[in-house]
Amino acid sequence: MKNFEFKNPTKIIFGKGQIEKLSQEIPENAKILMLYGGGSIIRNGIYEQVKEALSGYEVVEFGGIPANPEYSVLMDALKVIRDKNITFLLAVGGGSVIDGTKFLSSAAEYEGETPWDILAQKIPTTKAMPFGTVLTLPATGSEMNSGAVITRAETKEKLGMGGTGLFPLFSILDPQVIQSVPSRQLVNGITDAFTHVLEQYMTYPSGAILQDRFAESILQTLIEVGPKVLDDPTDHVAASNFMWSCTMALNGLIQKGVPTDWAVHAMGHELTALYGIDHARTLAVITPSHYKFNFETKKEKLAQYAERVWNITEGSLDHKASAAIEKTEEFFNLMGIDTKLSAYTRDYHGTAEEISKRFKERGWTGLGEHQSLTPDDVQEIVKRAY
Amino acid sequence: MKNFEFKNPTKIIFGKGQIEKLSQEIPENAKILMLYGGGSIIRNGIYEQVKEALSGYEVVEFGGIPANPEYSVLMDALKVIRDKNITFLLAVGGGSVIDGTKFLSSAAEYEGETPWDILAQKIPTTKAMPFGTVLTLPATGSEMNSGAVITRAETKEKLGMGGTGLFPLFSILDPQVIQSVPSRQLVNGITDAFTHVLEQYMTYPSGAILQDRFAESILQTLIEVGPKVLDDPTDHVAASNFMWSCTMALNGLIQKGVPTDWAVHAMGHELTALYGIDHARTLAVITPSHYKFNFETKKEKLAQYAERVWNITEGSLDHKASAAIEKTEEFFNLMGIDTKLSAYTRDYHGTAEEISKRFKERGWTGLGEHQSLTPDDVQEIVKRAY
Repeated sequence: MKNFEFKNPTKIIFGKGQIEKLSQEIPENAKILMLYGGGSIIRNGIYEQVKEALSGYEVVEFGGIPANPEYSVLMDALKVIRDKNITFLLAVGGGSVIDGTKFLSSAAEYEGETPWDILAQKIPTTKAMPFGTVLTLPATGSEMNSGAVITRAETKEKLGMGGTGLFPLFSILDPQVIQSVPSRQLVNGITDAFTHVLEQYMTYPSGAILQDRFAESILQTLIEVGPKVLDDPTDHVAASNFMWSCTMALNGLIQKGVPTDWAVHAMGHELTALYGIDHARTLAVITPSHYKFNFETKKEKLAQYAERVWNITEGSLDHKASAAIEKTEEFFNLMGIDTKLSAYTRDYHGTAEEISKRFKERGWTGLGEHQSLTPDDVQEIVKRAY
Repeated sequence: MKNFEFKNPTKIIFGKGQIEKLSQEIPENAKILMLYGGGSIIRNGIYEQVKEALSGYEVVEFGGIPANPEYSVLMDALKVIRDKNITFLLAVGGGSVIDGTKFLSSAAEYEGETPWDILAQKIPTTKAMPFGTVLTLPATGSEMNSGAVITRAETKEKLGMGGTGLFPLFSILDPQVIQSVPSRQLVNGITDAFTHVLEQYMTYPSGAILQDRFAESILQTLIEVGPKVLDDPTDHVAASNFMWSCTMALNGLIQKGVPTDWAVHAMGHELTALYGIDHARTLAVITPSHYKFNFETKKEKLAQYAERVWNITEGSLDHKASAAIEKTEEFFNLMGIDTKLSAYTRDYHGTAEEISKRFKERGWTGLGEHQSLTPDDVQEIVKRAY
């Protein structure tokens, strides 16, 4: 086990009917900017619940934050924060709205001229405007971590940011919200959370016995409840375990003391930036190809995953490791997720070269748990995912 | 899964050689009271490491906090805090020193006349003097939670306290410290952590799939690394997983959304108060008897535990459940822990009646996950543990 530091101060308020607790968590005199996405919260009644819980507060609204939160839209929101002297941000949405809110929380206190620099120059956020979240779509884990990913259409870029200042003050997680989430997005959420765990687990044995078992626990739970959630979103046991699994998949706990990969995300983000493919689906495209390409360095953990998560106990280590990759791809496919790039775009020729070129231009540092993947490796991994 | 709230703001600094980071965590102008136990930290070199890390600070010392931190000793420490205008407490020790420090942290800010009232009247601590810990003995989990248990010899009482103000600001966990811990205390630590998990897990199925798997992960890890730690405390993989398991066993995470029992602790505390038996050993005495007495209400979880943790997959549910109790007792016995009260004291006759009487006198509310155990039940459980 490696040395690590862990601190996660976000307060989680979990369960049915918890949105009404909002007013216990927001300072009395706060001037709130309520941020949301395309308006689904108005159709599913969450908007009403939130507004009711906020009665008595001064609330300004900013809707229309798109999936893959767009910098230019967020800059409009930043203007509202400044013009209206906002003191508290409330994200009501999924990972995109929450990530956008994190950017705003940082940008509102940023003293430089161009907030994009927070992303481009990787400036850690230690001071930020306080914010809370009401999660409407379990997937990214953003509700209990200090990271965000922001997209800029103008330059086709998708970059990450983070820092100790970016933990939500609180997050309200009511599993009932998934009843109104389209199944396409539920599938994305399951896949996203599943891949988050894999990025922190599918590396090499590092003596982190407890962290491995926690990671396997989340994978086992997602495999058990994922299909049930799709079948019946009113199943509270399935919904609540799905929701809590998504949060635990990326709240920092399972990545402490272990090597992590994140190459799948690095490549996947480029596919979203280039073609607008749903984030989770880009991960499902890259994962099998990445594990096959890096089979030799990952096969011990792949075999452990095969045994403990998929109950594949027969055969050689290589056999088990291979079977685990197949099982993973089957799991994605079963939920209706295509695992080949060609299923999403006809223009895939040249994608591998383009992504490799982009990574080189941004200053190559090597991807994966060994920081050993070269631009040529990336090109090959993406090509094999066509 | 039940509704829950979760927030744990303690910063964990985990790994080899981390004690030197102390000065990064304590405010510059702090006037520190450094609290420790019987002086083992002087013999094993941790005292030197801490003092070196604190050079530049004004540090007052208070040693001699006994196992089962004693109220009268703590009242002496409280006098030092007041006389010397202390502003920060640093616990260097195991659960007893940390629990004692938590009491002091609360008492230092308490406005009533008699600090014992915090315990006797169950007053939650929301405001407390800031404190950190350097953990020297993995066991109780006190380093990352907001609870404490204090003993008062004068009245043979052992009572709990807690509150949002009682989370350590930080805790430094260096697994190397266990190299100088006597094996008796290592065994106690493993048993204590193991029982903490059981108290939050061995109840009835409640649809908390992820929490169950996390609990099973900790149990599996302790079973794997416990004997290795005893065999070779310099084994870093075993030591670090043991240490992290103890913390995760009682930092609040696995108890969220599930029913909890804690009857074993309630009865065990009385055995310590009456006979001075090591806390962990009282738990090992009560656990098998408690599970046998409550077999019908606990057998579904006992069977799940049998299957997933002990790999007992054959036979009826009742058979698996019984076998799981036997396996648990064997695990304690293998590490040299006696599981019968008569092994610890000759004066055990009348103990069951005395404990039952004490519970009645304190105002009976019913023990266990259903709050259904009567004083007669307790009497029978303790008697069967003779």
